[in-house]
Amino acid sequence: MQHTHAVTTELHIDGGRMRADFNELADIGGTNEGGVTRLALSPEDINARAWFGDQLEAAGLTVYDDDAANLSGVLRSTHEDALTLMIGSHLDTVPDGGQYDGAVGIVAALECARTIRDHDLDLPFHIEIMDFTDDEGHWASLFGARAIAGRITYDDIFDTIRDNAPLRAALRGVGSNASRVFEARRDPETLLGYLELHIEHGTRLERANCPIGIVTGIVGRKTHTITFFGQAGHSGTTDMYKRRDALRGAALFITRAHDAVRARYGDGIFNCGDVEVKPGKFNIIPSKAICTIEVRHFNETLMAEMERELLQIARECAASHALEIKHELVTYMPAAPMTAGFISSIQSACEALDVSYMPLISYAGHAGQFMAQITPSAMIFIPSVDGVGHSPHERTEWSDVERGANALLHTILQLARSHG
Amino acid sequence: MQHTHAVTTELHIDGGRMRADFNELADIGGTNEGGVTRLALSPEDINARAWFGDQLEAAGLTVYDDDAANLSGVLRSTHEDALTLMIGSHLDTVPDGGQYDGAVGIVAALECARTIRDHDLDLPFHIEIMDFTDDEGHWASLFGARAIAGRITYDDIFDTIRDNAPLRAALRGVGSNASRVFEARRDPETLLGYLELHIEHGTRLERANCPIGIVTGIVGRKTHTITFFGQAGHSGTTDMYKRRDALRGAALFITRAHDAVRARYGDGIFNCGDVEVKPGKFNIIPSKAICTIEVRHFNETLMAEMERELLQIARECAASHALEIKHELVTYMPAAPMTAGFISSIQSACEALDVSYMPLISYAGHAGQFMAQITPSAMIFIPSVDGVGHSPHERTEWSDVERGANALLHTILQLARSHG
Repeated sequence: MQHTHAVTTELHIDGGRMRADFNELADIGGTNEGGVTRLALSPEDINARAWFGDQLEAAGLTVYDDDAANLSGVLRSTHEDALTLMIGSHLDTVPDGGQYDGAVGIVAALECARTIRDHDLDLPFHIEIMDFTDDEGHWASLFGARAIAGRITYDDIFDTIRDNAPLRAALRGVGSNASRVFEARRDPETLLGYLELHIEHGTRLERANCPIGIVTGIVGRKTHTITFFGQAGHSGTTDMYKRRDALRGAALFITRAHDAVRARYGDGIFNCGDVEVKPGKFNIIPSKAICTIEVRHFNETLMAEMERELLQIARECAASHALEIKHELVTYMPAAPMTAGFISSIQSACEALDVSYMPLISYAGHAGQFMAQITPSAMIFIPSVDGVGHSPHERTEWSDVERGANALLHTILQLARSHG
Repeated sequence: MQHTHAVTTELHIDGGRMRADFNELADIGGTNEGGVTRLALSPEDINARAWFGDQLEAAGLTVYDDDAANLSGVLRSTHEDALTLMIGSHLDTVPDGGQYDGAVGIVAALECARTIRDHDLDLPFHIEIMDFTDDEGHWASLFGARAIAGRITYDDIFDTIRDNAPLRAALRGVGSNASRVFEARRDPETLLGYLELHIEHGTRLERANCPIGIVTGIVGRKTHTITFFGQAGHSGTTDMYKRRDALRGAALFITRAHDAVRARYGDGIFNCGDVEVKPGKFNIIPSKAICTIEVRHFNETLMAEMERELLQIARECAASHALEIKHELVTYMPAAPMTAGFISSIQSACEALDVSYMPLISYAGHAGQFMAQITPSAMIFIPSVDGVGHSPHERTEWSDVERGANALLHTILQLARSHG
């Protein structure tokens, strides 16, 4: 076995082999338009998991899964008391998403493990290649990472308020037992840290013509439903000045909320992704409009302030149209700064490879958001063409994917040096 | 047989018998909350049709149906070359509608026929008690009345753009043959006219403390879908200033459209009853928002002007958020003035009964809108408590229903005198 101190920057991943993996994975759940639909725990995701398990075994890794349906393969170190460095991403996608989101991190991690094994390197830590369950939130955002971080409990998925029976059944479909989901929690004492390679989903790297982004923090994210309650009535005969039109209140809220966030929270993000209107007929005044909203900010204090202001706007819009209002927090992902030591290792790797890099905030949620709560964590971003994400048009130049995978490999080697 | 000239204002309908009918009908498709769901051609509507057919036969009328699924019963005159006076309304309701809308006109017409028959009156015209198919537009608004007026053709329901197969199947379910729907058209030469009793659905009668409204005209109505097209993208990572958010454009349109109609079209009506958002996720920027809108005005010219202004607002809202737009006219119901001679007959009936009345525009669409295109038509309105309509809370004082039915009966008698 070789020691990593002897390894030079000449060591590279096999781009052709990684591309073959990438193409095979893109076909699983692939659409005619070049997109991918692999909703977490769907038949397509299960096919992708089977493919991933085969690749892990073929690479000589030991395959594990846990009761949160996280799937992984371990390349063991011979070192006594070795900790585990997790590397990975997710196989699931949004509906009609792209080929790169998640997949790039999976095939790059797999390729790093193969390269290390091919060169017979005995690292001072185990490497565990991770597929985290439901990163995209088909059931519950970052479900797998939250379970590993101990942020999902038995009570969460057996509560009587939300119907989690379909999730429990889906977990059972991949052999996981929802009633033991809390056992997916990892002991932080056994972990060295977490690394993920991911596409940026934005245009900052592209505009800066920079191939590598080093994530300094992941934005916090809160989702709410805000429901406006009015009164149904015949659209033709109810006095135009006495209507309690739930959609009119919701529309004013959406308009004012977008304007307010842009005017006062330059770094904040607001999205209203859906409005569900009841009863939803041409000739009935809407009695109910349920807005599905999201706020993001890298600063927890500003995020809370933004959230308060948006709820105040919603109350004002309701009041101005004689509506009632109800809001419910659906998801809360705390803002997560990345670990300084790991950021330095990525910088050293880029410098050794003579690749330029820049620091970035991640405006998307990632497993690292929860992993950072239990272990040192960091992320490497690569450019997205035109910044497109969550779309069949999502694309990253293949040379950028290879460069990212090599940066990931050399970050692992830097960590091996500093933890050797 | 008696001649109508001999009949005095002492003649009245049997309120108890009519109330028994009303209660039986309210139970068909009745909800626990006191509402009614009898969507056109649904199992509940079919049950109501069966009940109605039984009542017509029990009253000694001859039952007919046509290939637009209109169901009727005829009380024949012995007069040579007698024309037909249609009287009626509709059995169908909106989803979770009220007990009175449509039902009042059905049971009152039925009761008038019974009263005329009980008193052995030989009128100079046949009386045909009508249930018009799909007044509420579950499939296509005022379908039955349009078919009778010759405004539905074979091409309409066999066109290849809209999928009318479910409607054709539903028609077949009640024994109607969609391929002969054009045969439901009535020869105007055979008709004397059309009369309908209906609840106001508004508060004008209630506020004026007036028991009878005489409809002078029915508003025109146009429905459109207006679709805003943007671009889907990851809500967290797409630049807040480069989003093409279809819902943001739609929300601005809804807000501005409501304001514009109130500011400039005092007698006009605007409703946006639904917005369908795609893909409709917390974390995806909406790529598509389909607004379901409606305009109403009793003046055709002003309605057209209103419609042009709303479409212009939609275009401006799309342009201000870099969206594309498409609009499609779904329904067009022309504004319909009621017939002067029939209005006079209702006035005479009210005066003979010593009941006060007032002229009203109908802001709801009714069968009379299309019947007026082929035959003299008029409508009698009775008050709605608090103006509630299309809701389980819809209610009319029973004394008002009886007064309305008697006004309908005496209008028929007035017409018998003037056409005798």
